[in-house]
Amino acid sequence: MNGRSPGDKLQDIACPAPVHQRSKIIAAHGGGGRLTRQLIERVFQPAFDNPGLDTGHDGAVVDVGPERLVMTTDSYVVQPLFFPGGDIGSLAVNGTVNDLSMCGARPLYLSAAFILEEGLPLEALEKIAASMRRAADEAGVRIVTGDTKVVETGNGDGMFITTTGVGRMETALSVHPSSIRPGDRIVLSGGLARHGIAVLDARNRLGLDCGVESDCAPLNRPVQQLLDAGVAIHCMRDLTRGGMATALVELAQSCSLDFRIQERQLPIDEKVRGACEILGFDPLYVANEGCFVCFVTESEAERALEVLHKNPVTQQARIVGQVEDSGTGTVVLETGLGTGRRLDLLSGEQLPRIC
Amino acid sequence: MNGRSPGDKLQDIACPAPVHQRSKIIAAHGGGGRLTRQLIERVFQPAFDNPGLDTGHDGAVVDVGPERLVMTTDSYVVQPLFFPGGDIGSLAVNGTVNDLSMCGARPLYLSAAFILEEGLPLEALEKIAASMRRAADEAGVRIVTGDTKVVETGNGDGMFITTTGVGRMETALSVHPSSIRPGDRIVLSGGLARHGIAVLDARNRLGLDCGVESDCAPLNRPVQQLLDAGVAIHCMRDLTRGGMATALVELAQSCSLDFRIQERQLPIDEKVRGACEILGFDPLYVANEGCFVCFVTESEAERALEVLHKNPVTQQARIVGQVEDSGTGTVVLETGLGTGRRLDLLSGEQLPRIC
Repeated sequence: MNGRSPGDKLQDIACPAPVHQRSKIIAAHGGGGRLTRQLIERVFQPAFDNPGLDTGHDGAVVDVGPERLVMTTDSYVVQPLFFPGGDIGSLAVNGTVNDLSMCGARPLYLSAAFILEEGLPLEALEKIAASMRRAADEAGVRIVTGDTKVVETGNGDGMFITTTGVGRMETALSVHPSSIRPGDRIVLSGGLARHGIAVLDARNRLGLDCGVESDCAPLNRPVQQLLDAGVAIHCMRDLTRGGMATALVELAQSCSLDFRIQERQLPIDEKVRGACEILGFDPLYVANEGCFVCFVTESEAERALEVLHKNPVTQQARIVGQVEDSGTGTVVLETGLGTGRRLDLLSGEQLPRIC
Repeated sequence: MNGRSPGDKLQDIACPAPVHQRSKIIAAHGGGGRLTRQLIERVFQPAFDNPGLDTGHDGAVVDVGPERLVMTTDSYVVQPLFFPGGDIGSLAVNGTVNDLSMCGARPLYLSAAFILEEGLPLEALEKIAASMRRAADEAGVRIVTGDTKVVETGNGDGMFITTTGVGRMETALSVHPSSIRPGDRIVLSGGLARHGIAVLDARNRLGLDCGVESDCAPLNRPVQQLLDAGVAIHCMRDLTRGGMATALVELAQSCSLDFRIQERQLPIDEKVRGACEILGFDPLYVANEGCFVCFVTESEAERALEVLHKNPVTQQARIVGQVEDSGTGTVVLETGLGTGRRLDLLSGEQLPRIC
């Protein structure tokens, strides 16, 4: 699967050169961390620069006539295609539904583009299409258009799916990193690191068999419930590639404020924690597919929790930290021992092909 | 590149089994012809069935508030990434712009999702991003959101791009296969088969070096000019995978009317014709990326030509056929010798990885 030696990989993680010093794409450019950000900032942002482009958010808000729409896209390359708690199809639907939700939009329509590898069993495609339909029904969105391409054996790794979503902004709130304010409470919706561990377990390389299921789930209903309850959400972000730590660091840098996170408040299942310890992974950097953080004022935080606790997907929601009164864009984890650990963007890639 | 023997390939083209009799995906499932249609009808249509899904058209018309939007998506897997007249980037932008245009919509916003293979030269990505920007500017659309994933060497074949487009329906016309009427004239916008031959030439497998450039171009301006001139367009279709023949057969079957095409009216460049003869390809089945057919009443046809002749992209436009007064969904090519040849959907795949 991987053409490079383990030594290369470790070197990438330890000391990745900036993108402009590299001449070739490496795995970490797709890891959601530092090199992905550099690729966006140094290649895509200058090339595509326009008033609608928003590389700091999960989707773009665009105007069509009197309507404010949100548009978002993601390619899914997860390996294996099926894993405990989901498959590439449910992941592709939920991931795009969630990106729309994180912008504050009501998800409406999805497109689905398939790149299939010759030799893919038709039964697998049928199962995945059915799974996409179930996920779409659960989220209340419609898959309205699609495309299929086939590439030769050895060039497509089973199946890649790209879903693009269109949603409607129905809130007058500006749900955006720039709306985060000093004093905001940071609400985490559920247990961390389940998706990454479930996918790795399904790869069966380490014979882990740890019984962890992916948290893959649509987040639009809890978000809608928050909005319907009148909670004035400042910002949301789902905690996918690079995990909670990477998402928070991106947001802190984006709004130039400091975040302080209480480690003992972070919900991490015992089985997940055990698997992370065996594998040497930091659960804060492991991908989630049904978890998000939400920034609200102190006075709104308890009400947000009340709303979230009523939904099964977010019943573990907790206040895990707060935004400092001043700052320069750093995220500090306060450990149980009273010490502080500064979190940074994921360098290199902890787990490739996770979404 | 291809894991199968030439014998397999020929067998597929000569006698492809229906999709339900096959257990695995083959190249022809992505060829835009008979097997692609079967895959859509037997896997995706039943799985995704909903009122917004329109598998017989280039995009889906959806309502958002008072707005009628069109949404379309395509993955691009062309090999090689660069070819005479374009590259995967300009192809990805123009292809999606054109699908929106064919539905009668004004293209507005695009998303771009990249699946990159480890080892891809960064310079290639930069060139392609710049090419996408130029194509977007030429078409007057904005790339507003995107995604990047990286797959291991040997799993991604350089680069795949999925572009999704959102456009606004500003015409009250129902531009759709179901609007085709007996007596309609079929207007073809330009010379056939250039894209497929240019890509094949760039693969340099046959040392053809025939000097043919892809017709890759945005079609939204000529379409807008037709609409602005008040031409009552019944239906449009760009002639991509499977070429003009496949597009026409799909449309004829969709509206259950017969089309009669005059072979001597078809504009095919001498160099293109020569290359097709050497390679044994039928130019009617070779992909185009800047050509479309347009169905209008007899009384509107000359005015449509006048409009199209003013735009450089469509200055070769001609009336190439007409819709019969009655029919069962067949397309007949009237040859120069006065004989008729019935056209069918492409079986198997003539040229893989063309778009």
